[in-house]
Amino acid sequence: MFGSPPDSGSRVSEIVRVTVWGENVHERTEPEVRALYPEGLHGAIAAGLSELLGDRVRVRTATLQEPEHGLTKEVIDDTDVLTWWGHIAHEEVDDAVVARVHDAVLGGMGLLVLHSGHYSKILRRLLGTTCDLRWRNEGERELVWTVEPLHPIAEGVSNPIVIEAQEMYSEPFAIPAPEALVFISSFAGGEVFRGGCTWTRGNGRIFYFSPGDQDYPVYHHQDIKRVLANGVQWAAPRLRQAPEGSPESPLGWFE
Amino acid sequence: MFGSPPDSGSRVSEIVRVTVWGENVHERTEPEVRALYPEGLHGAIAAGLSELLGDRVRVRTATLQEPEHGLTKEVIDDTDVLTWWGHIAHEEVDDAVVARVHDAVLGGMGLLVLHSGHYSKILRRLLGTTCDLRWRNEGERELVWTVEPLHPIAEGVSNPIVIEAQEMYSEPFAIPAPEALVFISSFAGGEVFRGGCTWTRGNGRIFYFSPGDQDYPVYHHQDIKRVLANGVQWAAPRLRQAPEGSPESPLGWFE
Amino acid sequence: MFGSPPDSGSRVSEIVRVTVWGENVHERTEPEVRALYPEGLHGAIAAGLSELLGDRVRVRTATLQEPEHGLTKEVIDDTDVLTWWGHIAHEEVDDAVVARVHDAVLGGMGLLVLHSGHYSKILRRLLGTTCDLRWRNEGERELVWTVEPLHPIAEGVSNPIVIEAQEMYSEPFAIPAPEALVFISSFAGGEVFRGGCTWTRGNGRIFYFSPGDQDYPVYHHQDIKRVLANGVQWAAPRLRQAPEGSPESPLGWFE
Amino acid sequence: MFGSPPDSGSRVSEIVRVTVWGENVHERTEPEVRALYPEGLHGAIAAGLSELLGDRVRVRTATLQEPEHGLTKEVIDDTDVLTWWGHIAHEEVDDAVVARVHDAVLGGMGLLVLHSGHYSKILRRLLGTTCDLRWRNEGERELVWTVEPLHPIAEGVSNPIVIEAQEMYSEPFAIPAPEALVFISSFAGGEVFRGGCTWTRGNGRIFYFSPGDQDYPVYHHQDIKRVLANGVQWAAPRLRQAPEGSPESPLGWFE
Repeated sequence: MFGSPPDSGSRVSEIVRVTVWGENVHERTEPEVRALYPEGLHGAIAAGLSELLGDRVRVRTATLQEPEHGLTKEVIDDTDVLTWWGHIAHEEVDDAVVARVHDAVLGGMGLLVLHSGHYSKILRRLLGTTCDLRWRNEGERELVWTVEPLHPIAEGVSNPIVIEAQEMYSEPFAIPAPEALVFISSFAGGEVFRGGCTWTRGNGRIFYFSPGDQDYPVYHHQDIKRVLANGVQWAAPRLRQAPEGSPESPLGWFE
Repeated sequence: MFGSPPDSGSRVSEIVRVTVWGENVHERTEPEVRALYPEGLHGAIAAGLSELLGDRVRVRTATLQEPEHGLTKEVIDDTDVLTWWGHIAHEEVDDAVVARVHDAVLGGMGLLVLHSGHYSKILRRLLGTTCDLRWRNEGERELVWTVEPLHPIAEGVSNPIVIEAQEMYSEPFAIPAPEALVFISSFAGGEVFRGGCTWTRGNGRIFYFSPGDQDYPVYHHQDIKRVLANGVQWAAPRLRQAPEGSPESPLGWFE
Repeated sequence: MFGSPPDSGSRVSEIVRVTVWGENVHERTEPEVRALYPEGLHGAIAAGLSELLGDRVRVRTATLQEPEHGLTKEVIDDTDVLTWWGHIAHEEVDDAVVARVHDAVLGGMGLLVLHSGHYSKILRRLLGTTCDLRWRNEGERELVWTVEPLHPIAEGVSNPIVIEAQEMYSEPFAIPAPEALVFISSFAGGEVFRGGCTWTRGNGRIFYFSPGDQDYPVYHHQDIKRVLANGVQWAAPRLRQAPEGSPESPLGWFE
Repeated sequence: MFGSPPDSGSRVSEIVRVTVWGENVHERTEPEVRALYPEGLHGAIAAGLSELLGDRVRVRTATLQEPEHGLTKEVIDDTDVLTWWGHIAHEEVDDAVVARVHDAVLGGMGLLVLHSGHYSKILRRLLGTTCDLRWRNEGERELVWTVEPLHPIAEGVSNPIVIEAQEMYSEPFAIPAPEALVFISSFAGGEVFRGGCTWTRGNGRIFYFSPGDQDYPVYHHQDIKRVLANGVQWAAPRLRQAPEGSPESPLGWFE
């Protein structure tokens, strides 16, 4: 008798269930951010996904201020892809919620980590590094260059994407070498940054994408919306399945 | 103005057009091979793909003995994924046909290289190495273990696949480190082999899969058929586009 | 003016300072383990390194039972490469010590994780995955095949290494795809395992090597000693340097 | 009995034997190039290596115009690392010499491919892709950023390297994903380029480094000399050994 196939987990629905998580601090406390993002950064990100993907996704939002940051077991179990934006309140995120998200990623949930989310507990925990980088906030032009044109995340995206004003992020970026390096950014000041990177952890796919900041209307940019929509589709799991543990396997178990 | 999107090539049809190429020498000259594969190895491979993929593929075959080995420009232009089985007549394959296949892969055509095809001109040309390996033909049991369970090529495949009798291929296998190592085989004699490997070259995806030999009914094994069907779907291009050359790009061309 | 070179950390000594860490539980409580390893597993590992590397290393040991598990700040600061063997007491390792080791690795300290150390807190924290595997303890023959013959860790090592009796570890092994896959093991029962893997995290090099168990005299095997000696030399840092944090970098800082 | 160790080839000398190959056309036909490089580009590259590595290398040069392009069997057998600069005469390089260099790389000879050598027969043959890129020759400032600070090739190199005037090379660069991405360049016009990449083919290490052009004094820049010196040391083989072919291996050959 043959061994059983590996995909005995629960198969995901055709419609990708997305939860857009937002720290939701800047937009509540800074009028100029609220002016750019009246529905919050999470609201803008969610709207972009719905606009581009329509019936192919079911999008909801969750924020830091909700009980369990809006990421209860029920919500996570009902999420195929989680997007994560945080900046000044990373330390306020409860470790138990981080552990739940981590487990879900290992079990197949996709994860998009956005911009200053590079310093989030969840990304550092998945990657094992500091995720340090250099930065400067002077509203410089950022160019986002596709270096892997065949990658599904780059499909239909202008090359380069031109973002008129942005915060600068630069190398050295303290990450493990990405499995795919999809985009490299340059800035008017001359710096470069590996701003579009993917990794796999357990059954889950992770995409980090750097463009996006509370001080600039980056999430209203059509190409940025397109990258996020592509990223959601790429990260959507084929199946969800908790890690198996380490089963003792008697001689000839597969025969 | 933004730069133009990278995917200006011709979009492929929904139905994957597969050409199964066979060297077609053993099965014409050795009765015991013909007994196993009355329609040729290419015939068995093609039948397996049609059986498992039905309307999702349109399968044809081509062989060494046809004019231009059956791989005319028209056929290649009409092929999304090419599968390649050869063994004792690698040197008889015309260099011009190899160059045509090479160009097509760089432009996005998928390529599955099977078993003794490891020594084909086309694979060595794409990988740049000798593709040497150790071997022994004594009908040993081969176990094919999935090491990347999430990879689409492993979906629905028994882990391990048990092949009762096979030729032994073992390390060291002189290939560039694969981009994804999907399967590792072990043999009754104790050897191991990286028998399921993927690479990207230009716009094309390449999958090498070692199980399959003229002396054993491997291509009638359901799990092997499944791997090949998965491989075809994985390697199918999203678009076909000839390499761009090296355009001179004036300052600000993207603005 | 040019920017400053990246290697402003403290340069390491020519002699590699190795700390061999042992959980030291089996050998204190089980007579048959003590018979195999009268000086403890850590003692045998340390002796093997000294035997093969002589003056090129300065080896000391540390164990779980010592204050701070023997891994005080002073010891870690004085260590170029740490080797880690643990099995039944992973949970007893203090999180503060794990954090200290983690920081040291990111700053350049090399780390060899051995056998059942796959489930250690430190490896899981560095890799971000569960490190699950299949296993069976029936004293089977293990063959360790070199698949990257050029890697310094494989230099002068028999291919295959034959280990007459061993615990079986098999795929699926829940790790991120290794940066280098140096060895693959097969077992008499037919399973395979990616038993020699490397990763980089921050400035630190990590090597996981699976052969080695308290029930078998694996650490007295000449080829295993050789692999560990090679691993120590490979993982030795060129420099030690704490992570930089994320400095704000004014426009033209490098000019 | 154990199998024999893999490193039965000839061990290389401690002194790295470098052959600097130059196309040697621009500098013979264009006075302004000769003014920059009176000894040829190959002469400047060789001088930089000798200046920085002293007794650790023995450097010679060879050029297109010599019999067998100066790359006879004797020269290649006596070379640990070959550097390759070509531009307008790639097609004049004899295929037999390319095959000889290819074989030597597979057997362990290191190879540095410089600047417009991206289009050389030898690099395309080793990588299997077109190596297309975008370009513009307007004397822009190039910044070379280290993205893998731990890589030996980046040791002691300014980050960024500032090159006041250079030809622009940009993505998409049609190469297989590099095994290590050491440097990324940005240009005043905003483009980015993966200008420092490594690959392994067979026993040989390959480093491609883009800075360097006949119209600018790039090879007189101290940081560029440093990168080339580091590259030579990194690519130097531990041993030279011709590919093994595919030996038939009887059951239990290793026992």
